[in-house]
Amino acid sequence: MRIGVLTGGGDCPGLNAVIRAVVRKGVQDHDYGFTGFRDGWRGVLEGRAVPLGIPQVRGILPRGGTILGSSRTNPFRERDGVERITGTLEQQGIDALIAIGGEDTLGVAARLAEEHGVRCVGVPKTIDNDLSATDYTFGFDTAVGIATEAIDRLHTTAESHMRVLVVEVMGRHAGWIALHSGLAGGANVILVPEQRFDVDEVCAWVTSRFRASYAPIVVVAEGAMPRDGELVLKDPQTLDAFGHVRLSGVGEWLAKEIEKRTGKEARTTVLGHVQRGGTPSAFDRWLATRFGLHAIDAVREGDYGKMVALRGTDVVRVPLREATASLKTVPMSLYEEAKVFFG
Amino acid sequence: MRIGVLTGGGDCPGLNAVIRAVVRKGVQDHDYGFTGFRDGWRGVLEGRAVPLGIPQVRGILPRGGTILGSSRTNPFRERDGVERITGTLEQQGIDALIAIGGEDTLGVAARLAEEHGVRCVGVPKTIDNDLSATDYTFGFDTAVGIATEAIDRLHTTAESHMRVLVVEVMGRHAGWIALHSGLAGGANVILVPEQRFDVDEVCAWVTSRFRASYAPIVVVAEGAMPRDGELVLKDPQTLDAFGHVRLSGVGEWLAKEIEKRTGKEARTTVLGHVQRGGTPSAFDRWLATRFGLHAIDAVREGDYGKMVALRGTDVVRVPLREATASLKTVPMSLYEEAKVFFG
Amino acid sequence: MRIGVLTGGGDCPGLNAVIRAVVRKGVQDHDYGFTGFRDGWRGVLEGRAVPLGIPQVRGILPRGGTILGSSRTNPFRERDGVERITGTLEQQGIDALIAIGGEDTLGVAARLAEEHGVRCVGVPKTIDNDLSATDYTFGFDTAVGIATEAIDRLHTTAESHMRVLVVEVMGRHAGWIALHSGLAGGANVILVPEQRFDVDEVCAWVTSRFRASYAPIVVVAEGAMPRDGELVLKDPQTLDAFGHVRLSGVGEWLAKEIEKRTGKEARTTVLGHVQRGGTPSAFDRWLATRFGLHAIDAVREGDYGKMVALRGTDVVRVPLREATASLKTVPMSLYEEAKVFFG
Amino acid sequence: MRIGVLTGGGDCPGLNAVIRAVVRKGVQDHDYGFTGFRDGWRGVLEGRAVPLGIPQVRGILPRGGTILGSSRTNPFRERDGVERITGTLEQQGIDALIAIGGEDTLGVAARLAEEHGVRCVGVPKTIDNDLSATDYTFGFDTAVGIATEAIDRLHTTAESHMRVLVVEVMGRHAGWIALHSGLAGGANVILVPEQRFDVDEVCAWVTSRFRASYAPIVVVAEGAMPRDGELVLKDPQTLDAFGHVRLSGVGEWLAKEIEKRTGKEARTTVLGHVQRGGTPSAFDRWLATRFGLHAIDAVREGDYGKMVALRGTDVVRVPLREATASLKTVPMSLYEEAKVFFG
Repeated sequence: MRIGVLTGGGDCPGLNAVIRAVVRKGVQDHDYGFTGFRDGWRGVLEGRAVPLGIPQVRGILPRGGTILGSSRTNPFRERDGVERITGTLEQQGIDALIAIGGEDTLGVAARLAEEHGVRCVGVPKTIDNDLSATDYTFGFDTAVGIATEAIDRLHTTAESHMRVLVVEVMGRHAGWIALHSGLAGGANVILVPEQRFDVDEVCAWVTSRFRASYAPIVVVAEGAMPRDGELVLKDPQTLDAFGHVRLSGVGEWLAKEIEKRTGKEARTTVLGHVQRGGTPSAFDRWLATRFGLHAIDAVREGDYGKMVALRGTDVVRVPLREATASLKTVPMSLYEEAKVFFG
Repeated sequence: MRIGVLTGGGDCPGLNAVIRAVVRKGVQDHDYGFTGFRDGWRGVLEGRAVPLGIPQVRGILPRGGTILGSSRTNPFRERDGVERITGTLEQQGIDALIAIGGEDTLGVAARLAEEHGVRCVGVPKTIDNDLSATDYTFGFDTAVGIATEAIDRLHTTAESHMRVLVVEVMGRHAGWIALHSGLAGGANVILVPEQRFDVDEVCAWVTSRFRASYAPIVVVAEGAMPRDGELVLKDPQTLDAFGHVRLSGVGEWLAKEIEKRTGKEARTTVLGHVQRGGTPSAFDRWLATRFGLHAIDAVREGDYGKMVALRGTDVVRVPLREATASLKTVPMSLYEEAKVFFG
Repeated sequence: MRIGVLTGGGDCPGLNAVIRAVVRKGVQDHDYGFTGFRDGWRGVLEGRAVPLGIPQVRGILPRGGTILGSSRTNPFRERDGVERITGTLEQQGIDALIAIGGEDTLGVAARLAEEHGVRCVGVPKTIDNDLSATDYTFGFDTAVGIATEAIDRLHTTAESHMRVLVVEVMGRHAGWIALHSGLAGGANVILVPEQRFDVDEVCAWVTSRFRASYAPIVVVAEGAMPRDGELVLKDPQTLDAFGHVRLSGVGEWLAKEIEKRTGKEARTTVLGHVQRGGTPSAFDRWLATRFGLHAIDAVREGDYGKMVALRGTDVVRVPLREATASLKTVPMSLYEEAKVFFG
Repeated sequence: MRIGVLTGGGDCPGLNAVIRAVVRKGVQDHDYGFTGFRDGWRGVLEGRAVPLGIPQVRGILPRGGTILGSSRTNPFRERDGVERITGTLEQQGIDALIAIGGEDTLGVAARLAEEHGVRCVGVPKTIDNDLSATDYTFGFDTAVGIATEAIDRLHTTAESHMRVLVVEVMGRHAGWIALHSGLAGGANVILVPEQRFDVDEVCAWVTSRFRASYAPIVVVAEGAMPRDGELVLKDPQTLDAFGHVRLSGVGEWLAKEIEKRTGKEARTTVLGHVQRGGTPSAFDRWLATRFGLHAIDAVREGDYGKMVALRGTDVVRVPLREATASLKTVPMSLYEEAKVFFG
């Protein structure tokens, strides 16, 4: 039995831990052979296969990124995409495919499974933790840890100069990283994409914090947006070509607004790619490893078209289609719970 | 309404985060008053109360330990213990008590609630993660992180000298820290209290690892014990006064046995107290904070005799009595799953 | 004897360690009294003095920032500045002043000492490590450590997507942080303010790195500037009001140029304030502590108008005037030495 | 020109960084060829040579340990040792040898250079920082950082239970790690091998700390010894086969003595091998890299029989013989300076 493995979408600490677990268990317990595809679905499209065995996965557990490379290529948008995919799988003698990725990568796996009978098992990956079918995805805990450590550091510099520090963290559509790191870091305001924010309310929290002789930390998800569209329109640089607010600049924009409205100095730190690189946290290594082991169980049982998922402390399987159907956003009740720490 | 707060048992990163969340929410949302008791139940027995308000909880979120101090005192084993407890509560005008602790501390709370009508809400704390009513307890993730980082470091020194490194981690009755840090750190053998180990089997794994030109890391929980009692008896220093294996020395003992039987150099590192001190991980700060917020919800709803607990991503409540009834040990199926990485 | 203490300029991990050492040694060995001034020279100007004794310095050793606050106020630029300074010192009964700060703060101390007979001892602080009179200043090692850890993380994400990552680090006039973190992090290009860079040469190094199947990391000091002025002029947003390259944006600008010229994806991470906050490294705590102890020695010996400085492993004293006279920049020989790792 | 490279003695973070710098500069700037010898001098004795080029040194900069392996073998104590050494060098066509190691490894290099004309350049390595010819050796800063982080963690657990924590750190003959980590970690007592300690004085410091309502941290170098020999003799287990105090047990022994004499609970943490493994600090990577580059300069200039060394911020060369002649211990003046923080 030969199993293909690929990683797609943005990289995420823990991808290598999944690959290692898959190969270790597959080879040692079941004597499976493995073929790695380079750069996600693009490697399958282009027939770029690499050997994948025990020697290739040695020492990769604590390493961030993915030894297989990644891309966002979607074969359904490529000419003859499906034919090229199935062609490569046949040529390489692939019996089953383990696809590690997010909504897009697994969406392709779901369609290939349903519409073209490709035997796929999915492993969920989203650093934003926004897949509804699983309690957690690996990479998220690492990102939250990095963001929290940065917030810890920013507290002391903010206090020394009594200025506002706005920290922009990842989270385009879901505010999980902002919420968790903001709570863990003792932020005074947390802004998430799930609820448009009112700049005046933010300024009120900021001011109240200063009144208590503390310097405020504002954590804002990159996808958070102000309630009042007009405010944005006044500063055309924050709009993109389509006249939309530039998601990547909300931290910078907000710091300027806070300065303008409160008269207090404000600075921005955009954590950016630092959040997704480097060695995975112990939690993420453990989760990624268990996902990898259970993906092999699914293959062995012939339980295709499924994705492994965490529920409580158990790893379960859910249909791939269902797994990618809806985004898991921060529920308002949870966000409201956090507001006791605002201001 | 005045609420007493105490922390009992071994200290654990996240205790301060609970205290802070309890006070922040209680004061800001409900205008409750708070009284801290020093050193767990001992402070209630002795009437040692300290003021607890917003100023006392500032800046404590990222700090390990507990600002209230801790002890293992059990009032049911003290002369007039219960009378002194209820006397102090009355004297201090305490309407409800939030007890943060493990099996022992919460067991006292359960009896006080059931037998003496004391209005208690429990918050679970065990660095070993061995309370069955909750998926996780705070402090555990921090301990696993510290142990994993140590294992990461030990790999390179083991490889440089091609020697065995035995790492003894916490876990007297449950092997959760050993299992998680061993998996996350890429250990070659993991030994837990739940299954007596065979030294010869350990040596076989060690030898097989050397054959693959790697240096083995053996992670052993402090409570793990060898299968063959006789081996132990030969070395009386590893027995305590009752003739039992000294739990604290299994790492040292095992390293010597490995040296004897395999002829390879073996060294031991006992991580000890480093695992329970210092700043909590982001996960533990988040969990501890949520536990604190929900404990206040329980008080507000008059839902006494309960403990807050994590189930998946939800915080729920379970009866205190039930919560402390059984130890959560590593299931054999989970331990077997990890064995694919042994040797 | 009563000693005033102040911290000026940008905050820096280690300031609190200096304050603690000064107070601990002064009180315990010599029974000195201490008065803290808030926010650097501004607090002296405005007579904002705070008590400073053993209780105030407890637990501050590992904390970043400064418990005294900081500012960039220069009393020589304020109306009646000097009179107000000497007035406050007299009013508070200050016999000597320990000023902890950089070029500006110590420049004021030097003039006050020389021109107005104020008894000053200086402690050097510059996170950029650009004071010529001392081998190292505290804060620098912490900043280099944070930048190096970020570079470590960025390697894996760069490799996964085979893209260029440009990391902008602190260093307005001197490239020490860029040079040290770039060397320690295994960067493929390091750009410093001391030598204008050629964008085509940078692109050649980037391309050569890709040819070796690796993803390049470019570390650029915020004050680094391209050689060819014209390139810059084409994009007016990168110019400030005076037509100069905006120092804070060189990373962003360079990433765009690299994309344009090499056709490779490039991303920027601006580390910003994260570099100057949080707990100091062990080296910085040790250095700051020794500086504090030796500042008290200088006071006790009446050796005013001096600054403590590190030479090798010794703490020595140099005249304040001399200490702030020249900037310590990266010598070209050292920069050339590093180029073996470029490309 | 072909250069042999070996690493000897205990492993140390930064060894790989030296190897990488040596090879990168040698190959790229001078087109040298390299041969690695396995396990220090043992590999030269036994003719175990491995290829060493750019591919072998990729990615090793941040990795602890040594890719070449290490041993404590001394060829002058082996039969025909020198003949076998020179035989291997001739057979492998080695023109010069870069030996990275401590007193023993470099002592061999010195004798081979002086007595047998072997062209050697030394790079100093001692995690204890006890080589007199250089201000610092790589690995030391990493060890101090790890010990300091552990002490930070132990503070909070000590405070929670108001118990003494004794931390045993490396340092057999020199107390540098104890002194630096003790100062950086805010220890209340620091004990070094350079001065025998008085247990009653230690207990007085401990007691004074408790009186100030704090829990004491005692940092003790593994080679520190009590002044009063008799105390030791009462407990035969702390003696080794020669009747000497067992160096590795001083922490455990001291904790028991403190408990006995003060009546306070005391616990020990022995940091052990964790201090020498894992990724090097930024400082150590920088220092190791510079040492490597300068070792190649020495080879190129034919300046053999020398060791590279750090003086202030400069890398210089000193005769190998002189470099290993005397141990650099903590001067009493520096130790006395630290005592202001005791108690």
